[in-house]
Amino acid sequence: MNERLQKQLDFLLEIDKEKQIFRQTHILGYGRRENDAEHAWHMAVMAFVLAEYVDDPVDVLRVVQMVLIHDLVEIYAGDTYAYDEEAKATQKDRELAAADRIFGMLPEDQGRQMREVWEEFEAYETAEARFAHLLDNYQPLFLSDANGGQDWVSHGVTRSQILKRNERALDVSEAMGRVIRQVIDKNVEKGTIRDE
Amino acid sequence: MNERLQKQLDFLLEIDKEKQIFRQTHILGYGRRENDAEHAWHMAVMAFVLAEYVDDPVDVLRVVQMVLIHDLVEIYAGDTYAYDEEAKATQKDRELAAADRIFGMLPEDQGRQMREVWEEFEAYETAEARFAHLLDNYQPLFLSDANGGQDWVSHGVTRSQILKRNERALDVSEAMGRVIRQVIDKNVEKGTIRDE
Repeated sequence: MNERLQKQLDFLLEIDKEKQIFRQTHILGYGRRENDAEHAWHMAVMAFVLAEYVDDPVDVLRVVQMVLIHDLVEIYAGDTYAYDEEAKATQKDRELAAADRIFGMLPEDQGRQMREVWEEFEAYETAEARFAHLLDNYQPLFLSDANGGQDWVSHGVTRSQILKRNERALDVSEAMGRVIRQVIDKNVEKGTIRDE
Repeated sequence: MNERLQKQLDFLLEIDKEKQIFRQTHILGYGRRENDAEHAWHMAVMAFVLAEYVDDPVDVLRVVQMVLIHDLVEIYAGDTYAYDEEAKATQKDRELAAADRIFGMLPEDQGRQMREVWEEFEAYETAEARFAHLLDNYQPLFLSDANGGQDWVSHGVTRSQILKRNERALDVSEAMGRVIRQVIDKNVEKGTIRDE
């Protein structure tokens, strides 16, 4: 086998480990926590279904690639819970080192392209990155709400934490911004999201 | 919320159940079986990385949508193991009924588009569908090989069964066809794939 294809297959085997990176969010039914691969798959299907609600036009292929690979760095850097301020302080450095390692497994041109897509996600500026972040925030919000809000109760999550996390994503889509606000309001009313 | 968006969110919640449809293949390390959502995610990343080896040009966005949704019918129809001839006899009918149900949850235009993509996959004729099938076959072969071939030993899988299953996929890509044949030959030699 040629060296290029061998590198690609080594990368594709290595990323299997994303199936063992568990998040704080539970799958529907609350039976167990979901892993990063499942989260990315769910976001990618969401990208196709919800693209029509993004106010600026987006390149769906780029959004889908972005959501599929956005958490690969967690294979080495681990999952950082959105509301864990201590872990978030070191998150950037851990993830940059992980990006060197995972994207560095690919042939140079392909690794560079994929890293650019990941960096675009992290920079949170383009319409594609903002839509990907909307999905990254909405997918666990959606599941936690469907599971009765237990994920938020377990971590004592507050309304202001969620609003801060969603700050930039809320402007990407008027319709989805409304949905997110409704979910938050409903759960504050139920007492599953703290209001302080 | 308007009726269209409500249908889309209901669909997106329903498909979470794909995370609970377990396959016969094990994840890397053989710790547990993998589920359909993880399999689809892995195939979608593979589509980006390996598209350059497809001999005919393909629309990568369509391939990615196809692989992401190709197993949604299994939420109701269950996973049918590739080498379980009894279950395969009723597979088509079970999956058609499941397709009516799952794609019927979406707004009519979107459900029709997604069903068309699924039917294109099932028909196995276009370059996109053939590449998607190559990935659908290669992803578990790749993992089973990395895990030492135990998946094949457990089911007493033979070389001719695998070759028959890969018959049409082997022609999609000369390079990947060679990789598949090498994996089969190596495992026949090791005795993990039966040669009869």
